[in-house]
Amino acid sequence: MHIGKSYRLTDFLYWTRRDLYILTVVGAVPVILYETFGLRWLVLPWTVVSLFGTATAFIVGFKNSQSYNRTRDAQNIWTNIGNTSNTWGIMCRDYFGDSSIARALVYRHFAWLTALRYQLRGERVWESTDVQHNAEYQQYYTIPERTSSLESELAKYLSPEELQQIAGVRSKTTQLLAMQSAAVKAAYGENTVQLAQFIELQRTINLFFAQTAQSESLKDTPYPRQYSIVNNIFVRIFCALLPFGLLREFDSLNRAAPGLLHGHMVWLLIPFSVMISWIYTSLVQVGESTENPFEGNSNDVPISQICRAIEIDLREMLGEKELPPPIVPQNDIII
Amino acid sequence: MHIGKSYRLTDFLYWTRRDLYILTVVGAVPVILYETFGLRWLVLPWTVVSLFGTATAFIVGFKNSQSYNRTRDAQNIWTNIGNTSNTWGIMCRDYFGDSSIARALVYRHFAWLTALRYQLRGERVWESTDVQHNAEYQQYYTIPERTSSLESELAKYLSPEELQQIAGVRSKTTQLLAMQSAAVKAAYGENTVQLAQFIELQRTINLFFAQTAQSESLKDTPYPRQYSIVNNIFVRIFCALLPFGLLREFDSLNRAAPGLLHGHMVWLLIPFSVMISWIYTSLVQVGESTENPFEGNSNDVPISQICRAIEIDLREMLGEKELPPPIVPQNDIII
Amino acid sequence: MHIGKSYRLTDFLYWTRRDLYILTVVGAVPVILYETFGLRWLVLPWTVVSLFGTATAFIVGFKNSQSYNRTRDAQNIWTNIGNTSNTWGIMCRDYFGDSSIARALVYRHFAWLTALRYQLRGERVWESTDVQHNAEYQQYYTIPERTSSLESELAKYLSPEELQQIAGVRSKTTQLLAMQSAAVKAAYGENTVQLAQFIELQRTINLFFAQTAQSESLKDTPYPRQYSIVNNIFVRIFCALLPFGLLREFDSLNRAAPGLLHGHMVWLLIPFSVMISWIYTSLVQVGESTENPFEGNSNDVPISQICRAIEIDLREMLGEKELPPPIVPQNDIII
Amino acid sequence: MHIGKSYRLTDFLYWTRRDLYILTVVGAVPVILYETFGLRWLVLPWTVVSLFGTATAFIVGFKNSQSYNRTRDAQNIWTNIGNTSNTWGIMCRDYFGDSSIARALVYRHFAWLTALRYQLRGERVWESTDVQHNAEYQQYYTIPERTSSLESELAKYLSPEELQQIAGVRSKTTQLLAMQSAAVKAAYGENTVQLAQFIELQRTINLFFAQTAQSESLKDTPYPRQYSIVNNIFVRIFCALLPFGLLREFDSLNRAAPGLLHGHMVWLLIPFSVMISWIYTSLVQVGESTENPFEGNSNDVPISQICRAIEIDLREMLGEKELPPPIVPQNDIII
Amino acid sequence: MHIGKSYRLTDFLYWTRRDLYILTVVGAVPVILYETFGLRWLVLPWTVVSLFGTATAFIVGFKNSQSYNRTRDAQNIWTNIGNTSNTWGIMCRDYFGDSSIARALVYRHFAWLTALRYQLRGERVWESTDVQHNAEYQQYYTIPERTSSLESELAKYLSPEELQQIAGVRSKTTQLLAMQSAAVKAAYGENTVQLAQFIELQRTINLFFAQTAQSESLKDTPYPRQYSIVNNIFVRIFCALLPFGLLREFDSLNRAAPGLLHGHMVWLLIPFSVMISWIYTSLVQVGESTENPFEGNSNDVPISQICRAIEIDLREMLGEKELPPPIVPQNDIII
Repeated sequence: MHIGKSYRLTDFLYWTRRDLYILTVVGAVPVILYETFGLRWLVLPWTVVSLFGTATAFIVGFKNSQSYNRTRDAQNIWTNIGNTSNTWGIMCRDYFGDSSIARALVYRHFAWLTALRYQLRGERVWESTDVQHNAEYQQYYTIPERTSSLESELAKYLSPEELQQIAGVRSKTTQLLAMQSAAVKAAYGENTVQLAQFIELQRTINLFFAQTAQSESLKDTPYPRQYSIVNNIFVRIFCALLPFGLLREFDSLNRAAPGLLHGHMVWLLIPFSVMISWIYTSLVQVGESTENPFEGNSNDVPISQICRAIEIDLREMLGEKELPPPIVPQNDIII
Repeated sequence: MHIGKSYRLTDFLYWTRRDLYILTVVGAVPVILYETFGLRWLVLPWTVVSLFGTATAFIVGFKNSQSYNRTRDAQNIWTNIGNTSNTWGIMCRDYFGDSSIARALVYRHFAWLTALRYQLRGERVWESTDVQHNAEYQQYYTIPERTSSLESELAKYLSPEELQQIAGVRSKTTQLLAMQSAAVKAAYGENTVQLAQFIELQRTINLFFAQTAQSESLKDTPYPRQYSIVNNIFVRIFCALLPFGLLREFDSLNRAAPGLLHGHMVWLLIPFSVMISWIYTSLVQVGESTENPFEGNSNDVPISQICRAIEIDLREMLGEKELPPPIVPQNDIII
Repeated sequence: MHIGKSYRLTDFLYWTRRDLYILTVVGAVPVILYETFGLRWLVLPWTVVSLFGTATAFIVGFKNSQSYNRTRDAQNIWTNIGNTSNTWGIMCRDYFGDSSIARALVYRHFAWLTALRYQLRGERVWESTDVQHNAEYQQYYTIPERTSSLESELAKYLSPEELQQIAGVRSKTTQLLAMQSAAVKAAYGENTVQLAQFIELQRTINLFFAQTAQSESLKDTPYPRQYSIVNNIFVRIFCALLPFGLLREFDSLNRAAPGLLHGHMVWLLIPFSVMISWIYTSLVQVGESTENPFEGNSNDVPISQICRAIEIDLREMLGEKELPPPIVPQNDIII
Repeated sequence: MHIGKSYRLTDFLYWTRRDLYILTVVGAVPVILYETFGLRWLVLPWTVVSLFGTATAFIVGFKNSQSYNRTRDAQNIWTNIGNTSNTWGIMCRDYFGDSSIARALVYRHFAWLTALRYQLRGERVWESTDVQHNAEYQQYYTIPERTSSLESELAKYLSPEELQQIAGVRSKTTQLLAMQSAAVKAAYGENTVQLAQFIELQRTINLFFAQTAQSESLKDTPYPRQYSIVNNIFVRIFCALLPFGLLREFDSLNRAAPGLLHGHMVWLLIPFSVMISWIYTSLVQVGESTENPFEGNSNDVPISQICRAIEIDLREMLGEKELPPPIVPQNDIII
Repeated sequence: MHIGKSYRLTDFLYWTRRDLYILTVVGAVPVILYETFGLRWLVLPWTVVSLFGTATAFIVGFKNSQSYNRTRDAQNIWTNIGNTSNTWGIMCRDYFGDSSIARALVYRHFAWLTALRYQLRGERVWESTDVQHNAEYQQYYTIPERTSSLESELAKYLSPEELQQIAGVRSKTTQLLAMQSAAVKAAYGENTVQLAQFIELQRTINLFFAQTAQSESLKDTPYPRQYSIVNNIFVRIFCALLPFGLLREFDSLNRAAPGLLHGHMVWLLIPFSVMISWIYTSLVQVGESTENPFEGNSNDVPISQICRAIEIDLREMLGEKELPPPIVPQNDIII
């Protein structure tokens, strides 16, 4: 997540420069054909382009709303993970007389958080983090989940036997939560907690199950591919048609143009065609870099930072003094 | 659900080719009448077409939003089914000292999942999976619910008596959940679980009742037919009127057209008329293949895969070692 | 609810034919004045009409979204009624050793469902079921709540004393639920159920209170009348202005019209004016037949069918063998 | 809330007549300057007006959606108050062996309802009930909260000591609910109810706290003033500019106007300018009379009626025979 | 929050005057170049500007909806904080026989509220409270969180040991709630409350955890920076292009302009260009002053006032007589 005052305009232009290059070519070709090769019949009625433009605007707008919603949903899920973790912390501390059990439950919770964030920061074929314009931006920040291995992280929180237990399973997060339930049950079996407390703890585990499932569902269900392709096709057709639609409009400017300018006003079409097309392609690019909130780009929900904050808070609840440092923004980006 | 990088453009054109054929004819007829038969009075003022186009765009846009919402709702219901199943798994395992009861409860849960997914993958008259353009796409994937019978699948999880018990009932899913309740009650009667646990288990069953009802409601309540027909009528009228509205616009291009082209610019109307109409018909077709999220097409919520994942997770919780394989995508489609 | 593949176009035209007649007259009058009586100054600038059209489209669109939402909300409430009824069924069956109490509770539940659906299918002055175009459609289906009396239906489920008890009360549904609570309390007083079960049953009754209140609120709170009248006024003004705005446009077609057609192109205005106006009036009519989801028309939420399905499921849970038949669609309509 | 078939057109025109007067003047001035004083340069390009019109439509549309949402939210809160009150009724009746305690709890509940509705029907500076066009409409109905004093109403339900207790407090509703909690606690202290019941009752009180807070928040948080002023400024500017933008359009009609009409077509601008402006001002006025759902106007959520219905239902539950009459609509308005 | 009848127009103009200055220059430059320096070729086709304007309107509209939603969400969170605090008040008072424990729990709750509001009223780099046009408005009200230090406020509610305990922690709000849990647990250990009450109290603490997390998430997650920059870029480009697009339109007015006016109508472009651009920039400015609901500006959710009201209510519940005064509006602003 970018938490600066704003992206810089230069950054934004740089980030979208590939589209600008292409759009310049797309805008220049019709002008050259029209002006240099004299193909005066190459024009398209503005009505056609305008109808196309409006329909495309609707589609792009719809997609950007849904991309926004996906990121906001992800944010909400992780806000919930944060406060349910606090809940877990006080329950573990205040339910168990024996603090070693509490500590084990809290550390296994860190393991679950770790497994979950590694899973969410995995790569999917439809994501755009490693697309060129995003990849080059990665020099400005590091993704913790790509700099150290899951195994070494989990080893901080789990015993070797536990690590062994989740080694080959389909879903580490699910089985870690199942282990929490088994541990709580064992404590109930030994009368460390009473039945109502056992149930209360298990309900909290159920919340974690739900948050896991919601996070995974957002990660593994891309924006519907059938909507996505319609979006892409129409934006491209629109950008291709736009300069043809503008030819007549700009040609008519020649009437008022004096001297040397006269007869060359059509060349002005290129920057304006680029400018308008660029709105559309920028919106597409912004949407694409927002729709997958867990892909490791600079617009991600900052799950690494949230997990670290949880870890600090829960360790403080347990009275620990040696705390890991909070994750700080790098170049205004928290990850 | 398609989980590739994108549908391919060629696939998309192929998938919508029938509309393209029809639209070409619809676009060509007015041009031929106008140009070849010289019916110059056949034109329609653009204002009429434009007003129609805007109103139709609203209606199509509304429908596509609601189709999107229906699929998203379906996804959310099944995300909940996933995590409530995990909840069920740990409760069964950790509440019952006797693991054979736990196993029976978990397997009956698989039977419920199976009955539910077979029911949801049944056919409804308003669905579009077996419409030609979708049917031909089915060669790329198999629908498990159509390759093996419900009975043989249920037999994996239920005893013959249980199978007998649900044979003639109105709703297998409902009575399977009622059987879960009876089993839990029996365990409570034998003091295997305490009252609070009995209530907690029954609450979880209630969640499954709710998820069943929500899934069935989405399956059996189509997008309101009265909205649907308005949508279809207007798109068709618009596509029929569009070329008449463009005749004057394209005819005016003749002024700038030199030599052989002169007088024939109207023919250019056909591809552009097709292109614009095709936006509308594509949106309709995309909407139609999205609005019924359980019909077995390539945009379905992947309920077979979700059920299998649940089965693996719950069996792993019970400590089983022989697990069914996860369902993998076929040609980027998971079902 | 219509559950066919689609309404037929002929049905739709027939259903909206009254508007078509009126709109034809509305479209013909200006043309006759203009053409036959030569009142050439009768035209209206298109800009005026176009601004009106866009504003009206917004208002009609907003209303149709809200109508859709009202029906969807109604559907959701009744989906909840369905699954909470299942919950009630298993609780009654599995909490009470004495099955006669369970049976009484379940039958009183049927009485509540019956009272609720009769109440919801009552008539309100703002509803449109008995408007001519809807009334004639009623030959295709029967509304159970209008073919047999509430008293005779309730008598199937309640004892005479109970019938007596709810005879004069303000709200039968409320007092029936209050009777359920009293019955449950009596069972608790006799130690048939324990306190936690008593509370659990009462919580379920509370859910039924909520569903009753939500259904009644939807029934008795019409789409805000102040929004509704704005909607109606503007659609009518628009339909009246539209042909005047089109006169100049169609008159200009005369330039290209040869021979006999020349000078008579204005008459073409009539069908197109009707067509465009008809979009708006159709949308209004579709909205009106959707906004009250419990009025007994063919777009209703099928509450009779849902109640019957609940009755069958709950009787099957109780092990009954003589079941009422499910309600089947009549001419693709379930009610 | 208006529950008639529709507002009458004449009522609506009467209700908005002040705007119509003003708009007529606003429309006539430019025409007089243009036509009578011959200021032909006074025209404005239509493009300017059209862009303004579209932007203003967006803003007005947004506000009207939010006004609708505010009323709907208010309706939902009060639907919940209704059913939670029923819940409270059966709990009080069925938890307490001693019916005098139940009666006291239920009557104190009526007191809370009374205090809440008086508070909500208080006046706020941003409300529009007493604006002239709404004030004159008040002759058609009476607002109970303005015809009798809160003190006399509360005295029906509370003992003098209780009245004394809430006399000087900041929030009567809050302290009444706190008194309910104290009464329940006292009953628990005397073992009239058990702990689980005490907790259950207190949870229900918490729901009333939530409903109080939601109602008050809607009452005391106006539609954001910064959005509101933007709305008002733009509608006024648009109405002022519109006739200038139409001058050229209507002047051009003179070409076709014969004889006496010739040269005077511009005067036709006035009614059409008024008509279009009136859409915008009507929407604003409708929005304004909807956005504050508790101000005592004819579009209010009918909280007096809801409270009375609750009182009747709860008294019937307690077996009382002397019931207050339901509140009936006056001139189709329930309040 | 502004709770007056309306912002005054003069205030609004004053507040946006900087934009008005800039827009006047932006509008004047093209006119001067065109008219004074005779650069007649400087015009831009209106179609380009119009397409730009529509697309920009969409983007600005989307942002303003989301800004509205952010403030409404913030309002809802704090409505919940209000009523959950009341819940906390009656639980503390009625669960604990020993009122000193209740008092400690309630005062620590005040400390939590204080820590939370200080945290929310902290400054973030993307907020706009201290931007010039907002900063000068701050003379009309005081922000309590900026006039006295957090430490001195907390000292009113906490003992020195407790102050010490939360001195160096990452999150004061989290550890204060954790202290509440520890206090409740201690009371349970001493049998002052029973297990069910202990659990009930902890559930309420969990609600406070959730409300804390939601508030913080809204505070620390700005409107996505990538959406924000697109918004700003497009509004600026539109404002820059608009006057060029209007040149031809206003120049054409010269045809009707007589005498001295003739040839100078283009100068009229400036006020109208400013007026239209000003809609867009005003909407942006209004959006910006709404999107961060906890930044201390005059559109904030009034958290200081809410906290004070809670404090009064809870102290009244405890029977205290010396109450702090409610926070009153200053110049119609409550903070």
